[in-house]
Amino acid sequence: MSSALRSSRSRGPWWSRPGLGYEHGELHFAGQAVAALARLHRTPLYLYDAARVTENLDRVRAALAARALPFRVFYAMKSNRHPPLLRALRRLDACGLDTCSPAEVARARACGFAAENISFTGTSLSDADLDALLRHEGLVLNLDSLHDIARVGALAPGRRIGLRINPGLGIGYRRNRLLRYAGGRGTKFGIHREQFPAALRLARRHGLVVEGIHFHTGCGYLTPQLPVLAEIFSACQPFVAQVSRLRYVNLGGGLGIPLVPSDRPLNLSAWSALVAQQFGGRGFEIWCEPGDYLVKDAGLLLLEVNTVERKGRTLYAGVNGGFQLHIEPAFYQLPLVPVPVHAPGPRTRLRPTTIAGHINEALDILHRDAHLPPLANGDLLAFLNAGGYGAAMASNHCMRGAFHELLLSS
Amino acid sequence: MSSALRSSRSRGPWWSRPGLGYEHGELHFAGQAVAALARLHRTPLYLYDAARVTENLDRVRAALAARALPFRVFYAMKSNRHPPLLRALRRLDACGLDTCSPAEVARARACGFAAENISFTGTSLSDADLDALLRHEGLVLNLDSLHDIARVGALAPGRRIGLRINPGLGIGYRRNRLLRYAGGRGTKFGIHREQFPAALRLARRHGLVVEGIHFHTGCGYLTPQLPVLAEIFSACQPFVAQVSRLRYVNLGGGLGIPLVPSDRPLNLSAWSALVAQQFGGRGFEIWCEPGDYLVKDAGLLLLEVNTVERKGRTLYAGVNGGFQLHIEPAFYQLPLVPVPVHAPGPRTRLRPTTIAGHINEALDILHRDAHLPPLANGDLLAFLNAGGYGAAMASNHCMRGAFHELLLSS
Repeated sequence: MSSALRSSRSRGPWWSRPGLGYEHGELHFAGQAVAALARLHRTPLYLYDAARVTENLDRVRAALAARALPFRVFYAMKSNRHPPLLRALRRLDACGLDTCSPAEVARARACGFAAENISFTGTSLSDADLDALLRHEGLVLNLDSLHDIARVGALAPGRRIGLRINPGLGIGYRRNRLLRYAGGRGTKFGIHREQFPAALRLARRHGLVVEGIHFHTGCGYLTPQLPVLAEIFSACQPFVAQVSRLRYVNLGGGLGIPLVPSDRPLNLSAWSALVAQQFGGRGFEIWCEPGDYLVKDAGLLLLEVNTVERKGRTLYAGVNGGFQLHIEPAFYQLPLVPVPVHAPGPRTRLRPTTIAGHINEALDILHRDAHLPPLANGDLLAFLNAGGYGAAMASNHCMRGAFHELLLSS
Repeated sequence: MSSALRSSRSRGPWWSRPGLGYEHGELHFAGQAVAALARLHRTPLYLYDAARVTENLDRVRAALAARALPFRVFYAMKSNRHPPLLRALRRLDACGLDTCSPAEVARARACGFAAENISFTGTSLSDADLDALLRHEGLVLNLDSLHDIARVGALAPGRRIGLRINPGLGIGYRRNRLLRYAGGRGTKFGIHREQFPAALRLARRHGLVVEGIHFHTGCGYLTPQLPVLAEIFSACQPFVAQVSRLRYVNLGGGLGIPLVPSDRPLNLSAWSALVAQQFGGRGFEIWCEPGDYLVKDAGLLLLEVNTVERKGRTLYAGVNGGFQLHIEPAFYQLPLVPVPVHAPGPRTRLRPTTIAGHINEALDILHRDAHLPPLANGDLLAFLNAGGYGAAMASNHCMRGAFHELLLSS
């Protein structure tokens, strides 16, 4: 992988942007010096930039608004459920929340979201789950199976529901097999095309009103994957055509962000053009559920170097965190790029350095061969794009689970 | 995969044993009816069988004792740190604990283990970690790097230490790449052979007394992998030869158990013969650190079926748990075999059934195509061999993290 610190342009490394970059040689994030925050709050520390989340949300909203589409955005809170972040989004009043468990719905409500602004799409729901969900009157409920339709029909006849469908195709970041939600050998999600007429009949029989179609097909797609997205949209049309008086078609999430220098940002204009072409002007709203797209690049994970040693042919820098704090490098093969909190000087020689977590498993490597300046005990590393599926999936493996989270707002 | 429920012999399915099997058609574990425990404690529920842990420990001890080797066993608590289990092991007084973080050491002490009976082998240790560890006088401390040697030397000159070495070879369950601790493209662990003389000089310079050699090379090995283990042992000899007055050679863990019907139990007699041949009669003790070997088959995870539906060509049974409760099937490609709590009748037709967890990720499949009787909402499934690296690695992903644990003792 090429250097995360040097750029052919003079404006700084590839990942820097207003709100994230070096000022006087020190990494700043959301207008604050990262090293000072680390001293104050100790590491491991997750930092989130509220303004960046807002920017990301605004960008999605603007792309859809430009197509004159009626739309709503629901933030996928499973990517990051930090309560201050959810409350900040509530105050912003520009999105609802996408949820997938009764406990998530309860947290969404506790953070101020009305049931009408919460969309639920789960899987393998128990009777107790359904009981808990149906207590939230007005909650948008997308059902994943005929079995769920029958149960909700029995418990709440007349209720409005959405149906999660399975278009039979999948998509993901750089063809990452781990992130596909549909297609391939088949997934557990949604109602397949051949079952859809039966699902509609079942809903009718129980007096349920089908007002929405939901699908979600992958995670982390960028512009090169848009043709696949177009195919998926096409595969959804036969479902949409069977439902009259649809209130919404929910495209799910999956919008990706650049994770390595060779990634270009998702062309949102091309994305919304595709959405408009396939689903525009049909009388229903377009809903979408970005998670990572809103929060991933709005989060840093700060860790401290504690061991620097060459072993065999590899230079290792050990840090005070590992895959228990951020699962993606070890288990999803997604990059988490480390950058030093103190900028290297222009003449500093960068060396391939492998960042080793402190979990007693060989898998616990946070990054292989990052190009970094010489590191020493006590140096701070900031891992970019750590805002989604990091803290949310953390465990206490090896009893190394402690960390802090801090939302930075201006 | 062949059926987990039928056997060509009349004695029951391949996994049944005294303490685990059907009695009058109901699954019993540690002398208790599993369904009754699930009703009382609710699911998700981890059950652990104290007697089985003892049996497994006794078997390892007997194999080493048969070779007239001086030995000690340290249970790797990172596989399962349930305090009642640790306290039961303490009362048994037949093993120490292997630890890898200061918090683990603290828990070991709180559960009654003396520092002398706790062996610590970590990686990427911070100064704060070392400070915390050195407060436990008598703690057995294996150091993973030259950097650690220098720091411990500065903080505690004269202290006795062990050195974790990297023999440059790895081993794992069925060649599972994810479980290798050494070798291949190199791992972060231990001191390599070319650095070992420098490590010994550094220890001497700081007045540290090297009393032990530690290595750990993989996870889940069975009899077919013993030739690789023999190679690893051979690769360790040049390290051992350089240290006079060794108190122990610690072989680490990695002893595996059968996970599918075609696996045969590890031939412990062949294993201990190998150990004796390579390390016996040399004046030092043989230490080992089984984790999974002691607890994996002593644990069941109980989940409840909530959704049964054919989607495309696959019959799915949804359950009230997923990879957030047991990470191994989704992320380590290790099988977690589901068996019904109510035995199928002799004429019941078994069908390939895929067990889907309730996490909103396509990856969250607990088992593909298990041969199971027809399932219905409310049926209980017991997942075999769930006692290690299950609860210990659990997360609260999607806020689905709640579960109970129960140690069954007679």
